[in-house]
Amino acid sequence: MTEKKIRTIEELGEFGLIDHLTSGISIKQESTHTGIGDDAAVIDHGTYYQVVTTDLLLEGVHFDLVYTPLKHLGYKAVVVNLSDVYAMNAAPRQITVSLGISGKFSVEALEEFYEGVNLACERFGVDLVGGDTSASVTGLLVSLTALGTAKKEELALRSGAKAKQLICVTGDLGAAYMGLKILEREKQLHAADPEFQPELQGYDYVLERFLKPEPRVDVLLALKEAGITPGAMIDISDGLSSELLHICKASGIGCQVYDERIPIADETKEAAEEFQMEPLVAALHGGEDYELLFTVPLSDYDKVSAIPGLSVIGNMTEEDGKALLVGNDGNAILLQAQGWNAYSPEK
Amino acid sequence: MTEKKIRTIEELGEFGLIDHLTSGISIKQESTHTGIGDDAAVIDHGTYYQVVTTDLLLEGVHFDLVYTPLKHLGYKAVVVNLSDVYAMNAAPRQITVSLGISGKFSVEALEEFYEGVNLACERFGVDLVGGDTSASVTGLLVSLTALGTAKKEELALRSGAKAKQLICVTGDLGAAYMGLKILEREKQLHAADPEFQPELQGYDYVLERFLKPEPRVDVLLALKEAGITPGAMIDISDGLSSELLHICKASGIGCQVYDERIPIADETKEAAEEFQMEPLVAALHGGEDYELLFTVPLSDYDKVSAIPGLSVIGNMTEEDGKALLVGNDGNAILLQAQGWNAYSPEK
Repeated sequence: MTEKKIRTIEELGEFGLIDHLTSGISIKQESTHTGIGDDAAVIDHGTYYQVVTTDLLLEGVHFDLVYTPLKHLGYKAVVVNLSDVYAMNAAPRQITVSLGISGKFSVEALEEFYEGVNLACERFGVDLVGGDTSASVTGLLVSLTALGTAKKEELALRSGAKAKQLICVTGDLGAAYMGLKILEREKQLHAADPEFQPELQGYDYVLERFLKPEPRVDVLLALKEAGITPGAMIDISDGLSSELLHICKASGIGCQVYDERIPIADETKEAAEEFQMEPLVAALHGGEDYELLFTVPLSDYDKVSAIPGLSVIGNMTEEDGKALLVGNDGNAILLQAQGWNAYSPEK
Repeated sequence: MTEKKIRTIEELGEFGLIDHLTSGISIKQESTHTGIGDDAAVIDHGTYYQVVTTDLLLEGVHFDLVYTPLKHLGYKAVVVNLSDVYAMNAAPRQITVSLGISGKFSVEALEEFYEGVNLACERFGVDLVGGDTSASVTGLLVSLTALGTAKKEELALRSGAKAKQLICVTGDLGAAYMGLKILEREKQLHAADPEFQPELQGYDYVLERFLKPEPRVDVLLALKEAGITPGAMIDISDGLSSELLHICKASGIGCQVYDERIPIADETKEAAEEFQMEPLVAALHGGEDYELLFTVPLSDYDKVSAIPGLSVIGNMTEEDGKALLVGNDGNAILLQAQGWNAYSPEK
């Protein structure tokens, strides 16, 4: 590892850092089916799999309490974690929630946070079974772990994609990022002029997509009813581009997607226009959409086309690791991961 | 909940806060056997139980990098979590490790931390299967989740104690607290005079107990070999007093322990003397010993007495919730929890 020593955390990035620190880990337990490297780890319980996923959410890095109500934060923290469980084509069962709390928080504030947590638990039929609570030196930090179960034949890993399979995405992309941009803009205007009243009317759709994402359980149910088992599946937390590359890398193949097929809501386009920004950039690199990206056999084209809220955006190719974005003119560009990198100095 | 609204987090304390925030939670999943309130949650997998426990460790609250080498921190972070698994009489199988890292940490520093994590994983046969990594605004934060399995008939909950059962404790108590006191003293002397060289020689035992605790797997194996199934079991993280009260409360009975039977090492007594402190106070309230406290049927007295490194310190009583400490003179005092309370302003 000597030659790696000179690399900084910024250079490695989040994924590089995890790869670097966890390379060379050997699996000792028979029950460990899949370790680090997917949306969740997979544990073999004989007749079914259990998936385990964990997320860290830090004030000032992942959320800003200036514009994030604590109840929404609690709800979103759970949903974000459940989204990883659903992305394994598994059903969530239990969660643990740990909190680090600085002196600025009151019991009432924490009650609000837990209201959101409980609402998500009720809605998705999940049990809050444990956690840890501690004082923190600065701000709020939330660490969640979610457990779920999947039938063995239904588990969807990132590595399950095959060449020629269709690439599908649920809902529309880029909206959450535009919601964040608007909240950040209003926050800055308010900071510059305390008399300024944030103007959030008319942005309901993109704001809700950012503040209150919903996991796409509906589409998973529709797939099941249609008798479709996804090949690879991942949830879109860092942006379409980054997630496509994860699937390509894990599956050892490539993909091509068509830019005009990438679903973007009108509200997202309008907001992007205000910021003089290309909506496609928000869809490719914005992240936090928590939509599902998955592959299905080519023969399922008619079936997936019949499911509302699903877009077929391209297909997997034989080309190892290459993710291509094909434009209207037929020209293709290589996709690169530019998801939210919390280590990036520009952030 | 209206009457509770005026309470502050400090007044509620850690356990009170958790109780308050998670009261009224209903269990929805059939597989959830035990939720919040034990060393770990318990999930029913049909022929066996799975236990799930999670811990949050924050720089400046739970550890001080001035005197905690990162490799030790990684090792201890895992061990502390495995200790909760062992305290359910379960075998640990998998862990996840999430890190929040501020800019002051290099890749090499994180490699050291993971060296400790991997050492503990190798030693206890546990797989590191996942985690999350993020930038943090200040310092280092570590969130771990451990999963283990237990035979259904062997699971030891806090609620499993019965009146007249013997109370046993492994190893000796109070050493980790004295180790911490010495490290804190040397740190302050060094801060007052940068020329001062910390003098840690001769304190090896108590320092190691603080910096590198070991879970008592050996005693669990000895119990199994002797055919003893513990009634209640808990690990001593907050101090004997606090853990006895947890068992009393969960089991709905009381206990009495004899002060002269509480095992305290000579090194702990000597260190306590330097601080003009009663060694018993370190044993009762010091915490971080990660020894096991458990009950066994009275009929197992001869068997447990034959196991090295075990002390029988008292017995459970009929008296609801009362934990008594009986002195040499036969007088008894009521034990109260004074474990490390991270919310306490005196800390």
